[in-house]
Amino acid sequence: MEKRSLAYEGKAKKLYETDDESVFLVEYLDQATALNGAKKDAVKGKGQMNNQITSQIFEKLTVKGIQSHFIEKISKNEQLVKRVEMIPLEIVVRNVAAGSFSKRLDITEGTDLPFPITEFYYKEDRLDDPFINDDHVAFLQVATKEEVQKIKELALQVNHLLQELFLSIDIRLIDFKIEVGRTEDGTILLADEISPDTCRLWDVNTNDHLDKDVYRRDLGDLIPVYEEVLQRLEEKGA
Amino acid sequence: MEKRSLAYEGKAKKLYETDDESVFLVEYLDQATALNGAKKDAVKGKGQMNNQITSQIFEKLTVKGIQSHFIEKISKNEQLVKRVEMIPLEIVVRNVAAGSFSKRLDITEGTDLPFPITEFYYKEDRLDDPFINDDHVAFLQVATKEEVQKIKELALQVNHLLQELFLSIDIRLIDFKIEVGRTEDGTILLADEISPDTCRLWDVNTNDHLDKDVYRRDLGDLIPVYEEVLQRLEEKGA
Ligand SMILES: Nc1ncnc2c1ncn2[C@@H]1O[C@H](COP(=O)(O)OP(=O)(O)OP(=O)(O)O)[C@@H](O)[C@H]1O
Ligand SMILES: Nc1ncnc2c1ncn2[C@@H]1O[C@H](COP(=O)(O)OP(=O)(O)OP(=O)(O)O)[C@@H](O)[C@H]1O
Ligand SMILES: [Mg+2]
Ligand SMILES: [Mg+2]
Repeated sequence: MEKRSLAYEGKAKKLYETDDESVFLVEYLDQATALNGAKKDAVKGKGQMNNQITSQIFEKLTVKGIQSHFIEKISKNEQLVKRVEMIPLEIVVRNVAAGSFSKRLDITEGTDLPFPITEFYYKEDRLDDPFINDDHVAFLQVATKEEVQKIKELALQVNHLLQELFLSIDIRLIDFKIEVGRTEDGTILLADEISPDTCRLWDVNTNDHLDKDVYRRDLGDLIPVYEEVLQRLEEKGA
Repeated sequence: MEKRSLAYEGKAKKLYETDDESVFLVEYLDQATALNGAKKDAVKGKGQMNNQITSQIFEKLTVKGIQSHFIEKISKNEQLVKRVEMIPLEIVVRNVAAGSFSKRLDITEGTDLPFPITEFYYKEDRLDDPFINDDHVAFLQVATKEEVQKIKELALQVNHLLQELFLSIDIRLIDFKIEVGRTEDGTILLADEISPDTCRLWDVNTNDHLDKDVYRRDLGDLIPVYEEVLQRLEEKGA
């Protein structure tokens, strides 16, 4: 597959056209951002980590029957994906209170939730990715009612599988964000990435943060933490 | 009906017990607040205005088949209502973009919405009444799934009737907030108040604000504006 012109440069990845019109080459960047880009640093090795972690996870989800954009990892920091029309939503699923959920409802971080809570954010940097409800989704016309239903089901399925996967490597899945897109024939595919950038992952025994909160909250070096997650996934991730 | 001990003092009203355990006497206060109480002023005559306006509106809604807490107005600034267990939600319905909706999605104030948009806020001063979604409502256990469904339907019915009522007096109903409660037998009743404190009302011809935005945004005296709304309701409100 030939790497052609740059199609899109985001905060964490570059997307390139390839000789197959329906395929993008994704290059993971050595860059960390938080607070919608207000905090930003070069972090050597991060691109490789996230490309490897997300590839591992998408492979495992595919085996379990999740339809995704992932085709294959082609180098340490590159992968091929099916090009989709992205739906500009960040779909968050929460198993344990943390972050903005804890703040919004004043629930102590670490409190187990009685059921997984799904939230939609409108992915629009200009607006700071606002939290929205189903009526807003319909108003914004970013997804149909049927798609919203499918997206919620997909998010909960992914949650279930990720919880299982992470628990097998002694990690509690606190919450995570996914993005989805639609193919030409209207199928909803899991897209973007699933990595410590997009999940809150706490060590089952120590409650250590094994995710981007290490960077967001200045808790130490990010690379050893991401390496730890990758190693566990490679060694024994179910 | 005898006025007994004070049961609750809010920012706009006092609730008194009566000799009937199932009935509250509501006294409307001469006080204006905004920004969750951060802005607060004594406004002589406001209690009378709001008691009269909300009584008019609840009477008209009752005629149209809406089940509410309203029993009767017993003086200029007092009314009797059925005591209910309040559901701590502020249910907002929007027909035209304004206020926080305009800010959240960067939609110019005054833009007609293609359908009425419903939003839930968790009524909890301590948290500044956060915007929440249906999963949060379930998590907070403030209402069952069935109640949420009923509440949404009620809110849209009320919206339809209020739009009609206000249009008959040359007022556009931009958006409004209601609160609901449950009776002992589990019936959901429209409760609290419906007044220029809880609605955005724009004159059809001039687009003048005929509501609390006059106070919130320091646009002038509130009393003449509320008087205007009351007069129109009394003279020709359908
Ligand atoms: N299969 C795909 N087809 C098309 N676009 C995709 C696909 N998967 C992911 N994308 C998009 O690729 C872009 C690049 O990702 P990246 O995460 O770097 O950017 P970003 O989302 O703008 O930044 P951030 O995630 O920090 O908000 C994103 O807009 C993402 O939605
Ligand atoms: N029928 C009813 N039975 C019991 N409580 C009611 C009924 N109708 C309204 N209430 C409650 O009466 C209280 C007093 O109203 P008020 O609007 O003054 O207070 P508030 O809501 O605390 O202040 P604000 O509206 O400014 O946030 C509110 O808590 C309201 O929910
Ligand atoms: Mg991204
Ligand atoms: Mg009130």
